[in-house]
Amino acid sequence: MSAVEKAQSFVADWRSFPFTVALSGASVAADHVSVAWADGRVSPCHFFWLRDSCPCTECVHAGTREQIFEVQDAPADLHATWVEVDADGQLQVQWSDGHASAYGPGWLRAHVYDDASRLERQAAQRTVRPWLQDLQIASFEYDAVMKDDSVLLAWLHAARDQGLTRIVGMPDDEDVVSTVARRISFLRETNFGVLWEVRTKVEEVNSNAYTALELPHHTDLPTREQQPGLQFLHCLINDATGGDSTFVDGFSIARALREEAPEAFALLSQYAVEFRNKASTSDYRALAPIIGLDARGEVSEVRVANWLRAPFDLPAAQMPAYYAAYRQFSVLTRDPRFIVRRRLEAGQMWCFDNRRTLHARQAFDPASGLRFLRGCYLDRDELLSRIRVLERTVCASPVARFA
Amino acid sequence: MSAVEKAQSFVADWRSFPFTVALSGASVAADHVSVAWADGRVSPCHFFWLRDSCPCTECVHAGTREQIFEVQDAPADLHATWVEVDADGQLQVQWSDGHASAYGPGWLRAHVYDDASRLERQAAQRTVRPWLQDLQIASFEYDAVMKDDSVLLAWLHAARDQGLTRIVGMPDDEDVVSTVARRISFLRETNFGVLWEVRTKVEEVNSNAYTALELPHHTDLPTREQQPGLQFLHCLINDATGGDSTFVDGFSIARALREEAPEAFALLSQYAVEFRNKASTSDYRALAPIIGLDARGEVSEVRVANWLRAPFDLPAAQMPAYYAAYRQFSVLTRDPRFIVRRRLEAGQMWCFDNRRTLHARQAFDPASGLRFLRGCYLDRDELLSRIRVLERTVCASPVARFA
Repeated sequence: MSAVEKAQSFVADWRSFPFTVALSGASVAADHVSVAWADGRVSPCHFFWLRDSCPCTECVHAGTREQIFEVQDAPADLHATWVEVDADGQLQVQWSDGHASAYGPGWLRAHVYDDASRLERQAAQRTVRPWLQDLQIASFEYDAVMKDDSVLLAWLHAARDQGLTRIVGMPDDEDVVSTVARRISFLRETNFGVLWEVRTKVEEVNSNAYTALELPHHTDLPTREQQPGLQFLHCLINDATGGDSTFVDGFSIARALREEAPEAFALLSQYAVEFRNKASTSDYRALAPIIGLDARGEVSEVRVANWLRAPFDLPAAQMPAYYAAYRQFSVLTRDPRFIVRRRLEAGQMWCFDNRRTLHARQAFDPASGLRFLRGCYLDRDELLSRIRVLERTVCASPVARFA
Repeated sequence: MSAVEKAQSFVADWRSFPFTVALSGASVAADHVSVAWADGRVSPCHFFWLRDSCPCTECVHAGTREQIFEVQDAPADLHATWVEVDADGQLQVQWSDGHASAYGPGWLRAHVYDDASRLERQAAQRTVRPWLQDLQIASFEYDAVMKDDSVLLAWLHAARDQGLTRIVGMPDDEDVVSTVARRISFLRETNFGVLWEVRTKVEEVNSNAYTALELPHHTDLPTREQQPGLQFLHCLINDATGGDSTFVDGFSIARALREEAPEAFALLSQYAVEFRNKASTSDYRALAPIIGLDARGEVSEVRVANWLRAPFDLPAAQMPAYYAAYRQFSVLTRDPRFIVRRRLEAGQMWCFDNRRTLHARQAFDPASGLRFLRGCYLDRDELLSRIRVLERTVCASPVARFA
């Protein structure tokens, strides 16, 4: 291993920070080290940030590769006394308290926070592809998903970016839905259990989901602080007349609202709404906006189930405008330009992002035949972790078969 | 059942909305029904809000008691044409589209959104009791928790409001930690499994938690979008020298920071930080603020684990101020005025709010004796649901025994 490779791999552990651009120089400024790159970019690295990131074995446990050093133990007036780009291309820093640090150019380039570097990183992380009624649903074969990691990864990329996928060729087995889901990770248990079923119930009707009624577009379990991430829905029997599935992309609807009615978008993303679901042994409530934004102000989820909403509890002055916004949003969830309609046949499974892709069921005639589905949930954390681990080894070649 | 009782119970299902104040009058205004109460309060009920809340059997499914009516199906110019408080004390409303609605005074008083009613409700929901180093930890007997619902409820109230509790008299059984936790609800699985253990490992050291090192105050799994809610930690063997537990109330620290350094508080609650944890089979990342605020701007969680933080990725202009804020916060987590220090003995279990109560472990001498703990997690949703269900039936009499 060359010195440069060594520097690159030092804090890399399971991630790699490949060399992309060379350091061309470094100098000490008032409160930071100014780092210059061969492509002309200049990055300020503030003293505490740089000291906090020191990868030496005094600062990072050699076995666990986790930080031992705590930055509040550095003196408040800490500063760099000397910096240099050495012959191996590393940034060398001598600190006022006697500590010395070295940073590889691969790691440094991946973490510096000048405006250009931040925008570049954020753009790379933006993978969502919004869709409309003409969506080609990404479809994958059960056998291939189970046996081939590259097919698995292609499926998971589609689930993450498109938020609606289908698996075909599922075995006729009541539990196989969890077998496929566990190919990703462990499942998210809820009060429905780990595995649950949808079939028309005559007795014990405690949810509209168990009737033959049309269910409007919704997310499952908006009554939880964190709605389940992926929803898996495996069709074992679908002999009833009616009962087609429809889907709309909540992100597309939020985007349309943001463009066409920015005030409505602002109200729905700003004010929290309570969702409630009560039964004999549970009583769940969650308070969250209908349009959820992430730390960067981008839409990260929608939360919708008309029959589980509590009465809006907002400042009175906002109530008429909020209702207008809610009506606008709801009207869009019925707008044909957004709606994808498909019938799920026996042996097929939907896998969709429950926090993004609203689903609905057309009314069906329970007398016309049986309808039996099994489902489970798995959170986004597990999906994304699995994708990152697969990406370490699989050279992803998309093999989606589009229906 | 009298007509008033009938009105009160109509949409009450598992919740009750007891009659507290009588309606004294109602009138139609430009965009709302103005409702007057016997205690002088006046509540505006906007047309859509009132129509949306209609409890009649056309609007709410009689079996599931969930709403069928969708408010976007009401005409955009919907208005009340006639209102009255009837002889039974109900609000009767006749709508411009021909529909008619009736609302019980108990339900109505519990949901109106004039400023006074909203403040009253919010105050009732504020149950958190922040604590300092002189905390008396609420302590409960295993047998009583398992057998007596009122003890169970007292324990859960303490876990919710104080965020740090202890169970004593635990059987010497490796799995009993889950038996107690399941008295509340199902568990939250993570990549550690459903049940996990803490003992010093010699091989396969992939986390500082499995070393004998001192661990600074932290929350578990800040690398997840939603950190686990309750953490259960059952001590089976503690024969090692050292290794005491310490706790600090993250809400107390956040409050101190808000009072003593409001700019630091603003930075820590505004900017998101990435937490990372990587292993051979998982790679978790979460981006969230260190101080999390709920929809009302109140502190709802803290997210802290110094050794799992990724380098801060913030606008360069904010970096020095952010580091100053982070150092201030970190210094407070070591401040004796906040620290509760206890040794967990064999047969005892901690149960604490992992998103609030930071925990730490003093360094210990692994050669001096064995140390073996078993743990599991359960989310806040399940805790709160269980409390609500117990409150339906248990007349709560607090029986906490304070250590």
